[in-house]
Amino acid sequence: MSINKLVEQIKLKKCPIVVGLDPRIEQIPESIKAPYYKLYGHTLEAVKHALMEFNRGIIDAVHDLVPAVKPQIAFYEKYGIEGLLAYKDACDYAKSKGLHVIADIKRGDIGSTSKAYSEAYIGLTDIEGRKVSAFFSDSVTVNPYLGDDCLKEFVDDIKAYDKGMWVLVKTSNKSSEQLQNLKVDSETVYEKVAELVNHWNQQTLQICGYSPIGAVVGATFPEEAKRLRKVMPNAYFLVPGYGAQGAKGKDIVHCFNEDGLGAIVNSSRGIIFAYLKSDLDYKAAARAAVVHMKEDINSALEAVSKKYY
Amino acid sequence: MSINKLVEQIKLKKCPIVVGLDPRIEQIPESIKAPYYKLYGHTLEAVKHALMEFNRGIIDAVHDLVPAVKPQIAFYEKYGIEGLLAYKDACDYAKSKGLHVIADIKRGDIGSTSKAYSEAYIGLTDIEGRKVSAFFSDSVTVNPYLGDDCLKEFVDDIKAYDKGMWVLVKTSNKSSEQLQNLKVDSETVYEKVAELVNHWNQQTLQICGYSPIGAVVGATFPEEAKRLRKVMPNAYFLVPGYGAQGAKGKDIVHCFNEDGLGAIVNSSRGIIFAYLKSDLDYKAAARAAVVHMKEDINSALEAVSKKYY
Repeated sequence: MSINKLVEQIKLKKCPIVVGLDPRIEQIPESIKAPYYKLYGHTLEAVKHALMEFNRGIIDAVHDLVPAVKPQIAFYEKYGIEGLLAYKDACDYAKSKGLHVIADIKRGDIGSTSKAYSEAYIGLTDIEGRKVSAFFSDSVTVNPYLGDDCLKEFVDDIKAYDKGMWVLVKTSNKSSEQLQNLKVDSETVYEKVAELVNHWNQQTLQICGYSPIGAVVGATFPEEAKRLRKVMPNAYFLVPGYGAQGAKGKDIVHCFNEDGLGAIVNSSRGIIFAYLKSDLDYKAAARAAVVHMKEDINSALEAVSKKYY
Repeated sequence: MSINKLVEQIKLKKCPIVVGLDPRIEQIPESIKAPYYKLYGHTLEAVKHALMEFNRGIIDAVHDLVPAVKPQIAFYEKYGIEGLLAYKDACDYAKSKGLHVIADIKRGDIGSTSKAYSEAYIGLTDIEGRKVSAFFSDSVTVNPYLGDDCLKEFVDDIKAYDKGMWVLVKTSNKSSEQLQNLKVDSETVYEKVAELVNHWNQQTLQICGYSPIGAVVGATFPEEAKRLRKVMPNAYFLVPGYGAQGAKGKDIVHCFNEDGLGAIVNSSRGIIFAYLKSDLDYKAAARAAVVHMKEDINSALEAVSKKYY
């Protein structure tokens, strides 16, 4: 799904929200996992089935409300091959429900290796003449520490297959300041990365006014977001840090442009495990959490006159 | 395998070399892949079998000569689940042959996500009371862009399971300079990362005089390596860029300490696909390439009086 289509879906659903699919077996409802534990014991096989059923349930519950989901691949790699089968299933199932799938993989390497990652997630793998898809996604997160050689390989596939990427600029965690906030001349490292992103943006602008090359900007740093919005006017921001990490609607309004577009906000635990703080079942609780988050964000945007629908 | 044991093996085998297991199906010998193509067609299933047979052949051919191998996971993710089965097989088989396995995964994320990666590759995954290993490796490469929260999670498992990691400091690719060489006060970003690594090193020193927390320092930048050797006296360097990327023995002597230890040099294509520029079969060619590389490095070290055995 192109950035044009993602923006269209955000407007249509009135919902700039990504649901993070970061399952933790400990937090998956007993009603899902107990039968698999009974059948397979406490094994990766049991976990695979539980993850698949859980994710499909979440996707069923929210797919008409949100434009996108974001599986964080670490939570699947952790369960080995079986976990990755569940990862693949989540991507494929979300796609079948019309959702934009953001593969949160944070890859990045030297040119030839980045090319392999790009083929794995947004491009196609060539088996000496026959092209196949290894893992499906619409866009990926990319780590910029290795510079342009790394990013370029993804950009080539973005152009070829109408996909997207999100470059880590300013991440939501506390120690992101250690490297990202180092001062270079009068700027910071993350602003330098933002300039790189903007450089790619200007070469890849789409009809919606945005580029398929977005930026990860943590909700936990509103002042930084305000500056970054100016440095990358045409980048969509993927904004983690809402909910479980502490940020609220009012904290993330600076990630949006004046047109009310330009950002999509992620929540993972706050949505998929909302049932732990609720009397509802996990699907109904996830749905209610999305509705609540949507109201919080949309009213925060309205309060600063950034209406987008 | 701990850093102590890795150093012991380097001395015993007189060989500070890592063989990079980065298979590309196009370059795998016809004699290996043709039967699988015949059986399964041009499918990921055929690729899986070819990769497994090829890697096992390489490991058989070099395991008595080298202390370590380094599968680059991108070249397996590219072939989907089947590729990852081949990745897992390479790690397990190398372990069974007494080799140190470096998982070249270049992961890095916020704390809770880094923890999941660490469990996946060097720690154990907890299935509500039963601990299992998702993927085996002795050490992993880690991207520092997210700072200490990210590294800390790996350090915890390194301590708990006697494992290791290699933090990207100065990578071998050309555009590594874009971010890594940015000037912060009188230093560069990569020197700041090196100071972080040194800080962890001092808390985790082992009997061999080195820490299990090493650094990736590209062979392609000898001047930078010289400075970094001083900033991180107790870090082992994992040195990519030899061979196919252009560096030779004389270029990498600065990565070693005066004791002739402190670095392990990777070559991937130059070893595993040596047969393409040789009359030997792929195993014999790989073995010959290792012997040649070993002589090149050891004589370059002797020439600067850095004898380690």
